[in-house]
Amino acid sequence: MTRRHPHLPAHAVIREVGLRDGLQSIATILPTGQKREWLRAAHAAGQREIEVGSFVPARLLPQLADTAELVAFAKTLPGLFVSVLVPNLRGAENAIAAEADLMIVPLSASHAHSLANLRKTPDEVVAEVARIRAARDAAGSRTLIEGGVGTAFGCTLQGEVRKSEVLRLMQAMLDAGADRVSLADTVGYADPAKVRELFEEALKIAGERFWCGHFHDTRGLGLANVYSALEVGVNRFDACPAGIGGCPHAPGASGNVATEDLAYLLGSMGIETGVDIGRLLALRERVAGWLASEKLHGSLWQAHLPKTFPQAVAA
Amino acid sequence: MTRRHPHLPAHAVIREVGLRDGLQSIATILPTGQKREWLRAAHAAGQREIEVGSFVPARLLPQLADTAELVAFAKTLPGLFVSVLVPNLRGAENAIAAEADLMIVPLSASHAHSLANLRKTPDEVVAEVARIRAARDAAGSRTLIEGGVGTAFGCTLQGEVRKSEVLRLMQAMLDAGADRVSLADTVGYADPAKVRELFEEALKIAGERFWCGHFHDTRGLGLANVYSALEVGVNRFDACPAGIGGCPHAPGASGNVATEDLAYLLGSMGIETGVDIGRLLALRERVAGWLASEKLHGSLWQAHLPKTFPQAVAA
Repeated sequence: MTRRHPHLPAHAVIREVGLRDGLQSIATILPTGQKREWLRAAHAAGQREIEVGSFVPARLLPQLADTAELVAFAKTLPGLFVSVLVPNLRGAENAIAAEADLMIVPLSASHAHSLANLRKTPDEVVAEVARIRAARDAAGSRTLIEGGVGTAFGCTLQGEVRKSEVLRLMQAMLDAGADRVSLADTVGYADPAKVRELFEEALKIAGERFWCGHFHDTRGLGLANVYSALEVGVNRFDACPAGIGGCPHAPGASGNVATEDLAYLLGSMGIETGVDIGRLLALRERVAGWLASEKLHGSLWQAHLPKTFPQAVAA
Repeated sequence: MTRRHPHLPAHAVIREVGLRDGLQSIATILPTGQKREWLRAAHAAGQREIEVGSFVPARLLPQLADTAELVAFAKTLPGLFVSVLVPNLRGAENAIAAEADLMIVPLSASHAHSLANLRKTPDEVVAEVARIRAARDAAGSRTLIEGGVGTAFGCTLQGEVRKSEVLRLMQAMLDAGADRVSLADTVGYADPAKVRELFEEALKIAGERFWCGHFHDTRGLGLANVYSALEVGVNRFDACPAGIGGCPHAPGASGNVATEDLAYLLGSMGIETGVDIGRLLALRERVAGWLASEKLHGSLWQAHLPKTFPQAVAA
């Protein structure tokens, strides 16, 4: 496929995080059978990177108690790169045992948010990354470690989070042994200009190890932020069907960027994603049925694809 | 105010079009008294360019039958630049008589949409612009003429609209005597890459006479499209409180970019607009009360401003 716009990447990856970030912040507990259906449908729609859950104690997040089972199932789907979130060494040991392809260690650059959400300072999380790396290497495991820097654009508790602090912590996680790093606008404070500034510097620090942008659509700027990140060369983004998710410490948050809307943005600009938007819209409808009592988001499902949209979206 | 981001304009204008584009496409007929309140509140919030109505026969758009009265009222508000839409010479004569500051002549670059919506071909509209210019000059009027090229990114009836045709018609309107030209994504088919391509060429053709970008948020890309247009130097955008509006020939359309969300995008990036977002949110709430039976849009009103947002947004 030729690159239609020279200032944008030729292809991009939509990483599905609905089963983790989406489900962890809503009340409905989805049965494992429906999660398997979700995984199968996302895979059939062409998604090849999916975060299937989180290795946290079931008493904290009963919604995600079946994560080990889901990793095992996801690994049966051909070509699927399976991620999980791990908050600490204990979770990482589970991810290694489950042979996940990647484990994401969340760090909050906001000291206040970090204490409220993870009960650790950001630098204590960095130290945990070093222990996780040691455990991974000792086990001879090939599970990659992604250090995810959250509240990268500010936080509802602390307010401002300095760019220099975000970049320092990103560098610290790389130094501690993270194979990949990513940035998350956990509470929807980013704008496209701030994205450009921060992501440009993050790419200078991490290069090929910079992995993913995670945007929330809290104030309507989710896709504008994605576009800005694309312009500086980022080409992997987290998303959830129907834009579910959000952060319990981000009141009023309207959730993640919607998978189907992100796929439309990318597809409309001729950026290859390998996904079939029609199937993503069908998956959204099923998820919406399962989560009937939850507030959902997104635009494309109401308006459908333009007449001018390329028919064959799949690779 | 210093320019915080060198790739973006230092200031921008949010042109309020809710009283025209918003109200014309919804069923509720707002009493003139409420429209005056709306105008007063938008002016008090710092808005200095407002499209107050349309000079079309009252039997076609009873919602806008009080346009002459509203122009007269709007002209009493200090420093307000008052626009109206005029579909033809007859409407233009009314706009000239009312001493509007600017009259917008809509042209649809889609032949099919033009016939369905205006009952004229695009080139017949160009000829009408020439007649309007002659009438304006003969009257010794100072009312500016803006040629607005709609369905600039495609159309629900015809599908594709060629960029070359959009640019040809823009040039033709300038040649026919339009003082300003603008581009509208009437049905929400634009994406940021297409915006960049088309607007770059439009600016080459029209230079300082390029006036305004009009985006709908039909498929969630409204603000991403605004950001892309800002990057090529456009700094005036149409918007409606609560994102009301849309096109009767664009089924499922979710309306214009929301004024308050646009103000947030611009303000967050340090682009001076002179508007007070708190007052815009208060206006949105009043409009939402008046239009209780209509479907409303927008994000900021649910999440409110970030803790980190500059307090004083007004100029």
